[in-house]
Amino acid sequence: MKQVKHMKWWGWGEEGVFFNYANKPAFAPFVKKHLGIDLRPRQVDTIPFDASTVPDSPLPDALRDALVAATASDRVTTDAHERVVHGHGSSVTELLHVSRFDYGRLPEVVVYPETDDEVAAVLRACVEADAVVVPFGGGTNISRSLQLDPTEARPIVSLDMGLLVGVHELDTESGLARIGAGMLGPDLEEALNARGWTLGHFPDSFTHSTLGGWAATRSSGMQSDKYGDIADIIRGMTVVRPSGTVTLKPVPSESTGPSLREMFIGSEGRLGVITDVWVRVHRLAEERVVVAYMYPTWSDAVDAIHSIAEAEVPTTFVRISDAHETAFSLSTQKEAVTLKKKVEAKAQEQLWAFMRRRGWDTDQMCISYVCFEGSKGDVDGRRRDVALIAKRHGALTLGTGPGALYDQKKFDTPYLRDFLLEQDVMGDVSETAAPWSRINTIHDSVYVAAQDAFDKLGKQGFIMCHLSHSYHVGACLYFTFAFQAGEEPDREYATVKTAIQQAFVDNGGTLSHHHGVGMEHAPWMEQVVSTEGVNLMRTLFNATDPGNHLNPGKIVDASLSLYDQL
Amino acid sequence: MKQVKHMKWWGWGEEGVFFNYANKPAFAPFVKKHLGIDLRPRQVDTIPFDASTVPDSPLPDALRDALVAATASDRVTTDAHERVVHGHGSSVTELLHVSRFDYGRLPEVVVYPETDDEVAAVLRACVEADAVVVPFGGGTNISRSLQLDPTEARPIVSLDMGLLVGVHELDTESGLARIGAGMLGPDLEEALNARGWTLGHFPDSFTHSTLGGWAATRSSGMQSDKYGDIADIIRGMTVVRPSGTVTLKPVPSESTGPSLREMFIGSEGRLGVITDVWVRVHRLAEERVVVAYMYPTWSDAVDAIHSIAEAEVPTTFVRISDAHETAFSLSTQKEAVTLKKKVEAKAQEQLWAFMRRRGWDTDQMCISYVCFEGSKGDVDGRRRDVALIAKRHGALTLGTGPGALYDQKKFDTPYLRDFLLEQDVMGDVSETAAPWSRINTIHDSVYVAAQDAFDKLGKQGFIMCHLSHSYHVGACLYFTFAFQAGEEPDREYATVKTAIQQAFVDNGGTLSHHHGVGMEHAPWMEQVVSTEGVNLMRTLFNATDPGNHLNPGKIVDASLSLYDQL
Repeated sequence: MKQVKHMKWWGWGEEGVFFNYANKPAFAPFVKKHLGIDLRPRQVDTIPFDASTVPDSPLPDALRDALVAATASDRVTTDAHERVVHGHGSSVTELLHVSRFDYGRLPEVVVYPETDDEVAAVLRACVEADAVVVPFGGGTNISRSLQLDPTEARPIVSLDMGLLVGVHELDTESGLARIGAGMLGPDLEEALNARGWTLGHFPDSFTHSTLGGWAATRSSGMQSDKYGDIADIIRGMTVVRPSGTVTLKPVPSESTGPSLREMFIGSEGRLGVITDVWVRVHRLAEERVVVAYMYPTWSDAVDAIHSIAEAEVPTTFVRISDAHETAFSLSTQKEAVTLKKKVEAKAQEQLWAFMRRRGWDTDQMCISYVCFEGSKGDVDGRRRDVALIAKRHGALTLGTGPGALYDQKKFDTPYLRDFLLEQDVMGDVSETAAPWSRINTIHDSVYVAAQDAFDKLGKQGFIMCHLSHSYHVGACLYFTFAFQAGEEPDREYATVKTAIQQAFVDNGGTLSHHHGVGMEHAPWMEQVVSTEGVNLMRTLFNATDPGNHLNPGKIVDASLSLYDQL
Repeated sequence: MKQVKHMKWWGWGEEGVFFNYANKPAFAPFVKKHLGIDLRPRQVDTIPFDASTVPDSPLPDALRDALVAATASDRVTTDAHERVVHGHGSSVTELLHVSRFDYGRLPEVVVYPETDDEVAAVLRACVEADAVVVPFGGGTNISRSLQLDPTEARPIVSLDMGLLVGVHELDTESGLARIGAGMLGPDLEEALNARGWTLGHFPDSFTHSTLGGWAATRSSGMQSDKYGDIADIIRGMTVVRPSGTVTLKPVPSESTGPSLREMFIGSEGRLGVITDVWVRVHRLAEERVVVAYMYPTWSDAVDAIHSIAEAEVPTTFVRISDAHETAFSLSTQKEAVTLKKKVEAKAQEQLWAFMRRRGWDTDQMCISYVCFEGSKGDVDGRRRDVALIAKRHGALTLGTGPGALYDQKKFDTPYLRDFLLEQDVMGDVSETAAPWSRINTIHDSVYVAAQDAFDKLGKQGFIMCHLSHSYHVGACLYFTFAFQAGEEPDREYATVKTAIQQAFVDNGGTLSHHHGVGMEHAPWMEQVVSTEGVNLMRTLFNATDPGNHLNPGKIVDASLSLYDQL
């Protein structure tokens, strides 16, 4: 069997890749100042897997035989390591427990189908055996979309999509490609890039997540300003259900009743298994630059970004870090050991001095990155347009140096979370989208809500934010928070996270802009789409999956909600 | 009660407004040449309504009392004229029958609710009485979305949305407005324009259709290249259902499971009644021009339009008429009576002569219109970009004169259909969307399919086409066809229309880009979204409306399909 790549069984990313602070002199002092803790020397570079910690799989023989028959293969496994890898996503509470050999409800078996027909046969076998099916992409979700109810008495089958890969069709005239849902981000981009094309979808999880996962969780990428959210990118798809297969042909737009495409996107496995996807692709841009700007304050920066959206300057992404996140970002700068780095550090000191002379409070300043793609002429023109808007809002343009650095590091943040966890610090993220008129209120309210939660726990905590996506009517705010875990990390985490989520929905924001619902966010669904909206979704799930076989308890009716942990 | 405006009971638009060919010298010869008929002098300017042709309403007293109680009002009527107006949409077959006093299944009663609570009370009363509810916006749909099954034994209640109007909220910071679903296009634009804003949604039916109707049928407007299809424009909504009300707050984008918003858009009344809608609005553009270009051939024009889309020039709309439609358009030019018109006519003759000297076949040439909006600088720059692309594809730029004329006449086409019907000519439209790689194939296949159908009927027929919307991955093709009706106009119409629709789906196009499904297009749903897709929709409708009270038989399970008329 072809090998399917998975992340570390206990944490983020590739074996052997870790966050390192030894070469970042400002990092430990920053953590000391903001979380009140002394970082311990790095202890754990890996956690050896111990199969003896995993209970045997009680997979019924009849189901095993049926799965083997469905796939006509040995691609059916009850291996302990496989079951652990497939038994959780990447939410911080899941990783905390798993890294302590506390696995929760594990699937009994993992199956690797290779074709749509095999997926269909597996689904039918599961319905027949009254088993539960949980599709598995990269396992990167942080909304507990894979988590299983410990009281689930039926056998659980994890359906790994990792062999349903490949760029099956590329229509270069239309800019459309049909791609296997199990394909990982880097593999997919490599295959498209080799032919001169790109999907342009780069979520933080890019290196370890799959196209099918992006579809099933309604993902959005860092470059969605240009390329669109996954719902814009997806133009057609194949969804295998126990009762049959839905095939949606790729069209630019259509008027054919309620959108099935938009029902499957975000369905997190509850309506069937997405096996391949027709996506909008773009020719690789001739030129690409990321330019950095420093604004005196958050509100100057938000006004500027809103003006860029109103002026409809075609940018690839526009991002602002608030003052806390800007300070954090500076704290992760590497030690200036090379001459080049020393010159840069000197230049930065001079810049800070210059800003202070201009009357800036350097504790308030916010860094912004804007990415431009296109022909040289397009890039130059758009860059000029944005520079003018930035200047009008008091910004200094810092050029492409910091932008290139940001671009290199953009997929590294999740490693930091594992590092912090190892230091007994719970760090996680929470994001929303809201109309422009609510952006500042939400920003302020979340800070107040998080601080209240930290106070309630009697802890020093830290929160920071960036604006990650902008639209005509509003934007996405993305918060990162951290605090030192105590005796009851689940309850402490739930206390902080619920405070932040509640501040979103109380102030006109939505539950999540791109992390999905899973079990983690399910408790707020009624507040976001109304009680009757939840009733309608529940009716849809129950009527189309009367046996409740398809990833039950996600989106609505979560059996393990965040509230339960309070 | 405040008066709700309706169209003529037997045809399109306002009383007293008609298509007139007396001042268009080339029109009658064009019709003679292409349809083989001599136009008769205009006979019918109006058809007097005759209440004696309408059977009495068998509305049960208990239901009448319940509806009066639900609305606490006299806004409940069984008036014959009201029932006829509310008993049909504007498909050509419906108009043909109605204008001959053949009404089909009429609703028993028309109710005008004024509030969401009244809508809810009406819905509950209808479920209680086992009655059917059909929401009514402007009655402009041409997909038979209002048509009722003649065998429907239960009472039918037409729910006129005309009193649920007004711009309720305008968030100028975010570019968002909450607007009553019953608001007609011109009223809505007038109210927004007065405050410096526009919705920018201009379907052909604009003057007589409503925001709620656009939402319920998944509409797209002439300027959707800039402003988006209605699914892009709508950011939140209120939907009243018998079991409760769904409230979706306006957000730019969200990751909260299957999209309820995208389930209600296009639901044609089957999931509830849309009572108000949060829409994306834009500040009125400083400048707006429509520029015309003449291309030597259709394929040159399509290539140019595709290049404009690829270059991402921000246009408001881009449209090409094929050679047949260009010729038709020229046939509707008014007689040159004023000096100005005479000068223009002379200039046109000279232009044609110039084109022929350049080797153009003037029977092949295609006119294109492109609309630009923005600051003067934006408009000038974009116009320059498009002119370069047009020139590269052999086009002559004709300037803003023909564009201004197109802009004035753009909502007039439906009047022509009534005129033709009066002349015993069936004229109607059929549209699709497809990837760029399928556009030329579909264009050619539809011409062949229509000609085959005309031949089968032993008739001379005419068909023409324009490309009306372009996207990154494809475009919308919009066909207009006409033929002289014989003894069996329904069957003849069905013969031609089914041939065209089948050519769409056989060649990679969708069923409809923006006219919805209704009963007219329902027979193709399985071919477009697959059998299992239809099963899923049916399950959704049946499970959420177990009594089948909400506009039954639309989208799937149409009791009167086009096939039935063959």
